[in-house]
Amino acid sequence: MDFITIIDYIGTFAFAISGIRLAAAKNFDIFGAYVVGFVTAIGGGTLRDLFLGMTPFWMEQPSYVVITAVALVFVIVFRKQVVKLNNTFFIFDAIGIGLFTVVGVERSLEAGFPMWVNIIMGSITGAAGGMFRDIFINEVPLIFRKDIYAVACVLGGVTYYICLWLGCSHILTQIISAISVILIRILSVRFSISLPSLKPIEEHN
Amino acid sequence: MDFITIIDYIGTFAFAISGIRLAAAKNFDIFGAYVVGFVTAIGGGTLRDLFLGMTPFWMEQPSYVVITAVALVFVIVFRKQVVKLNNTFFIFDAIGIGLFTVVGVERSLEAGFPMWVNIIMGSITGAAGGMFRDIFINEVPLIFRKDIYAVACVLGGVTYYICLWLGCSHILTQIISAISVILIRILSVRFSISLPSLKPIEEHN
Amino acid sequence: MDFITIIDYIGTFAFAISGIRLAAAKNFDIFGAYVVGFVTAIGGGTLRDLFLGMTPFWMEQPSYVVITAVALVFVIVFRKQVVKLNNTFFIFDAIGIGLFTVVGVERSLEAGFPMWVNIIMGSITGAAGGMFRDIFINEVPLIFRKDIYAVACVLGGVTYYICLWLGCSHILTQIISAISVILIRILSVRFSISLPSLKPIEEHN
Repeated sequence: MDFITIIDYIGTFAFAISGIRLAAAKNFDIFGAYVVGFVTAIGGGTLRDLFLGMTPFWMEQPSYVVITAVALVFVIVFRKQVVKLNNTFFIFDAIGIGLFTVVGVERSLEAGFPMWVNIIMGSITGAAGGMFRDIFINEVPLIFRKDIYAVACVLGGVTYYICLWLGCSHILTQIISAISVILIRILSVRFSISLPSLKPIEEHN
Repeated sequence: MDFITIIDYIGTFAFAISGIRLAAAKNFDIFGAYVVGFVTAIGGGTLRDLFLGMTPFWMEQPSYVVITAVALVFVIVFRKQVVKLNNTFFIFDAIGIGLFTVVGVERSLEAGFPMWVNIIMGSITGAAGGMFRDIFINEVPLIFRKDIYAVACVLGGVTYYICLWLGCSHILTQIISAISVILIRILSVRFSISLPSLKPIEEHN
Repeated sequence: MDFITIIDYIGTFAFAISGIRLAAAKNFDIFGAYVVGFVTAIGGGTLRDLFLGMTPFWMEQPSYVVITAVALVFVIVFRKQVVKLNNTFFIFDAIGIGLFTVVGVERSLEAGFPMWVNIIMGSITGAAGGMFRDIFINEVPLIFRKDIYAVACVLGGVTYYICLWLGCSHILTQIISAISVILIRILSVRFSISLPSLKPIEEHN
């Protein structure tokens, strides 16, 4: 199991935990919580693969189904610790977003799409899982209202191409791109930086 | 028209009725109710087919579009009887879930996927239509909060493989698997059996 | 840039504006508003392309991403004028629905599907973007509850086939079909014509 795979699994675990916790807050049953955790973890990559015309990645090997099950057991067994581990999970989550973005950019690149599509596919991979999670639990998607989230993915994708353009090696490009996402995400939360919101305009129907 | 087809149509009819009734409760117009009924009936199989890389099954013949129209007319004309027929529809609905699960498992199997994917595809076929319905009418999906529903599909898929492993014939495997879904569904509602729910953990944002 | 393309871009612009405005009403940040605008503009055609097994149309050229960005800047810069331009946007929106419907019918026709599938694909192209928009902002989809919207698309698709059957030329068929959608849409709003709604039936769970 190589380094990328380990980070991928850690990110999946952190995403699943986030889905399961929000499902618990809505009194979902344990199977519902499992589904929400799974969708949070694999939703972004699944939408990307449907757009790219590929078989969803999680159908190719059972790791993601298993990791979500581990996350569910973890939340049930370590209820109280989970809250104390908030900061740890936040870091895992940020690492997951960074890695997922890079994975998404490259999967789209390999499929032969142009740069701007690849950046969008990277952003969908990193950010859409959280969006599906919020739709499932019937909330307005958080990523559209709070801190820098999807934008971190977009900037990570742009960084990927800046690195390529500067002649960085493949592995360096991956690392710098992922780290840029992680840093933007962490710094924006640490310093409560968020995008300006649009002021409501008199509504039309 | 063979036996499987008849049951498929009865299940579609029952699913469409359930969507149309919930749309009516939200004051949807008749076209909106038609769409919700249709999505309830075909949503699960459609998601499965997108994941499997196939053309959605309902695009291959007009039966499903027609059956949903019949269900809409039925609800409009027999408003009062519909409520009295609650138990009948519940049975039809359970039969539909059972059959849809088996159809989903086999469609995935024929596409060459491994057992665990096939069980997931069977469960999506049986359970995801109701999930789409609830998202459309802006409710937290019921299947994540009440009685045994999606879990019945998962267990039906597992039963399918137990039968194969025991050397049952194809037709016997189909029947036992579908009946296991139907029985689990009916017994769980009859005896108010539900999965434990996750207790809310102090929420993180 | 031919005439059809210009109308396509105007329709995209109008759809994006409608999504951005509703996102603003929910205090989305500017990136969230961009995403909702984009999904409103391309959601219908994207769902159609997934059903048809094609690469989503907006991944083939960057126009739609750019037009949505222009729409976002437009809403930010011309806040007050946007409200006054309500009627203009309504007309643009109606033109967009009409054109999208014809584009959807023809894309499905070219993919070799039968008439009734093509009419559904045309309707999805014209109407599903608004549905996704409403799910994103966590509202019950408006198109299921108010005036004639999706039905205008269906009738436009039927008109397309009536024209073909009458032996109209291709371009005439396109024009009459699009205009029928636009007229039905405008007249239904002008004269407050809506479909009857279904009365709630005692709810079952």
